[in-house]
Amino acid sequence: MIEARLPKGMRDFLPADMLKREYVFNIVKDVFHLYGFEPIQTPVLELSETLLGKYGQDAENLIFHAQHARSKKEPLAMRYDLTVPLARVVTLHENHLTFPFKRYHIAPVWRGERPQRGRYREFFQCDVDIVGVADMSADAEVIGVAVTALKRLGFPQFMVKINNRKLLTGMGIYSGVPENQLADLYRSVDKFDKIGADGVQKELEGHGIDREVVSRMMGLLQMRDGGFAILDALESKMRHIPAAMEGVGELRQLAEALGNAYISLEHYEFDFTMVRGLGYYTGPIFETIITEPNLGSITGGGRYDGLIGLFRRESLPTTGTSLGIERIIDLLDTLNLYPGDLNRTVVQVLVAIVDESCRTEATRLAAELRSQGVATEFYMNDQAKLGKQMGYANRKGIPLVAIVGPEEISAGQVKLKHMGSGDEHITTREAVAANVRELLK
Amino acid sequence: MIEARLPKGMRDFLPADMLKREYVFNIVKDVFHLYGFEPIQTPVLELSETLLGKYGQDAENLIFHAQHARSKKEPLAMRYDLTVPLARVVTLHENHLTFPFKRYHIAPVWRGERPQRGRYREFFQCDVDIVGVADMSADAEVIGVAVTALKRLGFPQFMVKINNRKLLTGMGIYSGVPENQLADLYRSVDKFDKIGADGVQKELEGHGIDREVVSRMMGLLQMRDGGFAILDALESKMRHIPAAMEGVGELRQLAEALGNAYISLEHYEFDFTMVRGLGYYTGPIFETIITEPNLGSITGGGRYDGLIGLFRRESLPTTGTSLGIERIIDLLDTLNLYPGDLNRTVVQVLVAIVDESCRTEATRLAAELRSQGVATEFYMNDQAKLGKQMGYANRKGIPLVAIVGPEEISAGQVKLKHMGSGDEHITTREAVAANVRELLK
Repeated sequence: MIEARLPKGMRDFLPADMLKREYVFNIVKDVFHLYGFEPIQTPVLELSETLLGKYGQDAENLIFHAQHARSKKEPLAMRYDLTVPLARVVTLHENHLTFPFKRYHIAPVWRGERPQRGRYREFFQCDVDIVGVADMSADAEVIGVAVTALKRLGFPQFMVKINNRKLLTGMGIYSGVPENQLADLYRSVDKFDKIGADGVQKELEGHGIDREVVSRMMGLLQMRDGGFAILDALESKMRHIPAAMEGVGELRQLAEALGNAYISLEHYEFDFTMVRGLGYYTGPIFETIITEPNLGSITGGGRYDGLIGLFRRESLPTTGTSLGIERIIDLLDTLNLYPGDLNRTVVQVLVAIVDESCRTEATRLAAELRSQGVATEFYMNDQAKLGKQMGYANRKGIPLVAIVGPEEISAGQVKLKHMGSGDEHITTREAVAANVRELLK
Repeated sequence: MIEARLPKGMRDFLPADMLKREYVFNIVKDVFHLYGFEPIQTPVLELSETLLGKYGQDAENLIFHAQHARSKKEPLAMRYDLTVPLARVVTLHENHLTFPFKRYHIAPVWRGERPQRGRYREFFQCDVDIVGVADMSADAEVIGVAVTALKRLGFPQFMVKINNRKLLTGMGIYSGVPENQLADLYRSVDKFDKIGADGVQKELEGHGIDREVVSRMMGLLQMRDGGFAILDALESKMRHIPAAMEGVGELRQLAEALGNAYISLEHYEFDFTMVRGLGYYTGPIFETIITEPNLGSITGGGRYDGLIGLFRRESLPTTGTSLGIERIIDLLDTLNLYPGDLNRTVVQVLVAIVDESCRTEATRLAAELRSQGVATEFYMNDQAKLGKQMGYANRKGIPLVAIVGPEEISAGQVKLKHMGSGDEHITTREAVAANVRELLK
């Protein structure tokens, strides 16, 4: 006998969990469709050469390698994210795609991280990206999708933080950070949330950057103001730094496009301390944080115009965002945002078997209900008392029980018991599906 | 630069393919829900010990093994089917499940087979099973699901073939096949479709089974008749063979349960030459074949009361069926059964950008349409002539184009062009979403 165990960091989803997950997936898919994003799927396994060299050594230690007896000449690995597969798909199928290519992809990825609360080795990612548009209208579109999805999911308070990689570089140059230390700068600023302004300042000074330079940089980074005013201020300061002017220009276009899409400053702000970890971003970057209560980031993305160039002589401008779907699923529980009437079961009616003499009629009633579109289960275990069958319906969260006992059969009737209220309704056999629908409203 | 390639036997699904696949998945899920089956998901990776030893050596050579730097002490493998994961789930979570447990599972599995037309190394399986019911009503339920799904998918002619493992054993014993050759018997009869009656007969004689014994067996196997008559005939013949009587008894109960569920002999028949490959079946077995045109089997299943006993001291009675979902997806194309109006895109309206001066209003119109539930794309590439934008809509299969040029803007109107008919409709900005819905009916 084999012990029934799960691998470390992996999960089963039983029906009640699945219904919660599907509730979330359905909302985000609806929003993706509203914005004209289309679904794709790619294989879990990619050639190792497709994945390796894209994520850095630390990340690559986490990649799952796979093989079977016939694949030894073809080293394979399990996908680590959905972005590299997108770049591969766009290059491989470019003649079959219409650009701009707006796709979404909801699928699991694998990372051999140390498992901990909320962190798994197999988890779903949920990405929307637009390939082929250099204009900031694409970035606004991607932010719009995230905002609309979070609204529809019912998050009461959230904020999109927006920054720009070119602007960060410009701020570094303006402040006097030596060119070869601009990379250190991003890495340290990325820790702002964790170690605070003082921490970042100390770390930068520790890298040997002049205290005055660091102070100037920290001042710029922490500038806050609503909307365009801050862009004007930066522009007047850094007019002679081309990178900064490009970055500010992109943010200005982005803000205009957001305004045209009716996304207001209620939902976004510029935050120059927000850097995002990934190395491949080239322009605007954005993430959404839940502000009330303060629960950190649940979406993140940005523009990465170079990535497709890994597979293709000429890259294609690309921007996109990832919804942290596993975290969203957990937070809806924490914040009690699942609808009160979210079903624990797909079943609408349990047809009870009153006694063996009624089994045939019960089976027929179930078939009739199903043919009229009612999700129906009939009680399949032999000789259980009616009370036990009611208990089964309660345990599963089935809202209605239909009873066709000897009396009901001879009268051509069905008794419907509403498990929530305990009320009983007598209906004719013909009207039973309509009555079920009425009672479930 | 890395070459963009797929691993052997694996596929990408681009949006138009995805919409076909989702059309099929949605129909089968709806049917599963009607019958009260609930979704589960399990991780792609299982402990190797969970998978190995269940499928036989030939199959095991096809299993993909997986590991990463931290998992070396925990040998892992990618799931090969959805049945062994079900047995593991039922055992691991039995205290959190309500029995009978009716679950469906739609998910990819991996097998390192030699790729060929219609056979892939990553492909979806689609299983419904009932755990915890020994009664034949469960088997009838599973057959009912398959019949209803195939009807809803539009297959014009199909037939469920039903047999019983106990009855096959009984026929072997009755004919005089030596007990230690009953296994050879199944393996040879399983080739009936490929090598015909003569082929099976020769093969059995080749195993050294007496010619007369083989003839008797072949006679029994090929008995055909509608419904109960054939069961009566078998019963009167083999009254003294307990295995045969048990098998006939199960088939009789199954036929009764099918009748109660309004599934008639139009849709099923007994076929004693149908054996099914898998070793674990213990009672009724069934498969569905497309009869018109003759395209072979697209669902298959049966009762396997012993399998959960691999993980659990006491097994649980289980029956289920697999819909050959990849084959079904392909056959709907072959037979031209996808609805004529199945969309190639999720997008309902393309908002065109007539010139740069209209971009703001176009973006706003898109936002307004989306807020009213219309799936909308606006044209994002700069400075394309209207004709090029129409071409884009045509190529993607977007049914409507909305135009807000300078004239429309000053009149507060929108022009809707129906790409199929070429008709143009002028509407007010307020009524545009309602008009879109009307035109898409």
